[in-house]
Amino acid sequence: MSQRFSVTYWLAAGDADEARARAEAVALEQTLEIPRDAVPTGYVEDVMLGRLVALAPDTGSLGGFRATISYANDDVGGDFLQLLNIIFGNSSILAGLRVIDIELNDELEALCGGPRFGTEGLRSRAGASGRPLFMSAIKPVGLGTVALAERAAQFALGGMDFVKDDHGLVDQTTAPFDERVKACIQAVGEANGRSGGRTVFVPNVTAETGLAIERAHKAREWGAGAVMLAPGLLGFDVARTLARDSDFGLPIITHPTFSGANTITPTTGFSHRVFYGLLTRMMGADAVVYPNFGGRFGFSQAECRSIADGCGEAFGSLRPILPAPGGGMSIEKIPQMRDVYGDDVIYLVGGALMRAPEGIVDATRRLVAAAIG
Amino acid sequence: MSQRFSVTYWLAAGDADEARARAEAVALEQTLEIPRDAVPTGYVEDVMLGRLVALAPDTGSLGGFRATISYANDDVGGDFLQLLNIIFGNSSILAGLRVIDIELNDELEALCGGPRFGTEGLRSRAGASGRPLFMSAIKPVGLGTVALAERAAQFALGGMDFVKDDHGLVDQTTAPFDERVKACIQAVGEANGRSGGRTVFVPNVTAETGLAIERAHKAREWGAGAVMLAPGLLGFDVARTLARDSDFGLPIITHPTFSGANTITPTTGFSHRVFYGLLTRMMGADAVVYPNFGGRFGFSQAECRSIADGCGEAFGSLRPILPAPGGGMSIEKIPQMRDVYGDDVIYLVGGALMRAPEGIVDATRRLVAAAIG
Repeated sequence: MSQRFSVTYWLAAGDADEARARAEAVALEQTLEIPRDAVPTGYVEDVMLGRLVALAPDTGSLGGFRATISYANDDVGGDFLQLLNIIFGNSSILAGLRVIDIELNDELEALCGGPRFGTEGLRSRAGASGRPLFMSAIKPVGLGTVALAERAAQFALGGMDFVKDDHGLVDQTTAPFDERVKACIQAVGEANGRSGGRTVFVPNVTAETGLAIERAHKAREWGAGAVMLAPGLLGFDVARTLARDSDFGLPIITHPTFSGANTITPTTGFSHRVFYGLLTRMMGADAVVYPNFGGRFGFSQAECRSIADGCGEAFGSLRPILPAPGGGMSIEKIPQMRDVYGDDVIYLVGGALMRAPEGIVDATRRLVAAAIG
Repeated sequence: MSQRFSVTYWLAAGDADEARARAEAVALEQTLEIPRDAVPTGYVEDVMLGRLVALAPDTGSLGGFRATISYANDDVGGDFLQLLNIIFGNSSILAGLRVIDIELNDELEALCGGPRFGTEGLRSRAGASGRPLFMSAIKPVGLGTVALAERAAQFALGGMDFVKDDHGLVDQTTAPFDERVKACIQAVGEANGRSGGRTVFVPNVTAETGLAIERAHKAREWGAGAVMLAPGLLGFDVARTLARDSDFGLPIITHPTFSGANTITPTTGFSHRVFYGLLTRMMGADAVVYPNFGGRFGFSQAECRSIADGCGEAFGSLRPILPAPGGGMSIEKIPQMRDVYGDDVIYLVGGALMRAPEGIVDATRRLVAAAIG
């Protein structure tokens, strides 16, 4: 008998009857996608058709209802992208419908695989127990390799755990991938030699089909400490492929570029917790970059806290991961961030340190002291 | 000197000053992503920084402004996903901002490559000049290979140009990919032998990393006439990779699953015309499936017409492609669709034919007659 998993949707509806009709339409759309009266009896109807298992008014400010629908593992057929397709395929095109929770089962957790490192693995590799972690990005695009590597070294000397490529650095002629990544790994390594630190360099491997995985492996051979990729551009299975590849064996950090529409309208897409938290863990990444509250983007403090919840809460056998809020962060915002996130966070701070009067190294030290002291 | 390309955004703003400030923030966010006062002078500021080149009030019902920003090809660095990242990367996470137009240049058109077949190529292969084309899908998931292949044969006998997999058919045990695709190709071929038709089978190749491209090639070897894939799941470069591969050489049809949030909120994401029309052509696909007006989804007639415009209008050297509206279509809706789309369309009709009292073959013939007669 096929195991079942469930997805909870928020849906707009005027009353319970309408909500039930909408939920049953979603159960049909996400699986059989034919008129209800054309559904064959037997296995197709009994097992493959989505099943509404709970429906209740939502108590939030938007009103509406919460509908939980169970689906069969047989619908998924052992294909990770098909799991996502069942969770929110065609129904992603419906207004007034949002994925707010996912509950897997052991077979699907095995399909996902989950993060290879997760929070504990990242801490262990960074030698950072009982404290938040720190990440910055080398930028802007257009600087040459030497200048970017110098910035990487300064961030490392200041005490960053991770120095990553800006997500816009790919293979531009001013700082081609191979040259840049090798130079930055070397510069960070030399800085570690001077400081005794364990900073790692994290290249952006987002690239054309096939090339992303090739670059991830090259970066590992050269000594990168993790890789970053953008699932919204690269697709939702590349992180998982790398996470399951024991020849690769590095942490993976996701970047939210190009996929913003999935969360920013409260009545469509995915809740912040599901999209940045649960889905990222299903993809096998170990940390997730997203825009922090109070920066250049519009996420609320509550939404950001919910992302941290989705990263850290129990989710079957999939390891917890670290939230990496960034985007217009500054040293002054650290106390408020400590209140919201506690220690299970990667502070992603960049631009503010670049223009600090004391220089990047000392500004980074001040940041670390503000967050740990 | 680096060629430049441009993106036009709709943006929410109370007045022209606010609109200018928002647009300049987008130009910075999409390229350098550092505080404006930290931008190095010279090449980075002069070339790599996005440049606001036009700003005007929008005359549409939403108010707001239209801002055109030019970017340097050097920002892209010859990487297709980075082109998308420049068009709408981090800014996709901003509310009140929507991509409404894209203008490329010859270098970027060469980078995209564009559709190998496009409208004329699809018509030529189908032997269908001066008429709309027809497509249906075999479903539901859960039926066995024999039953699905039988449906494929019936659609072919009735006169469909394309019979595709439902987008939820991947590799389920009831109808595994290899077995299903081979059986459907054979069934459609036999139907062609009886009818004298040229129907082709279109498998869904959406699958795990690497496997999608492998399946596309296998399907071609077995005699498939095109392939379908879902960029929202698989990433935005896989279609382009296949379209540029001369060893592959089949038409590509995209499916909109999992990516709905990109268009359904009028103030975020992409306009329908850009997302389903222009982006699909940039990806190199030859036809785009999307939900038609008046079906189960909420697209308006005007939005659907705009998609057809984005598929067919001049867009540099990138060939026009065919819109394939579907989702709750019926024979009764054909006259209205003819008015809206004319002949440059693929009618995607499925469920309505499955439950037609006269059976699939005769119902398909009636559909074709209604659309052509």
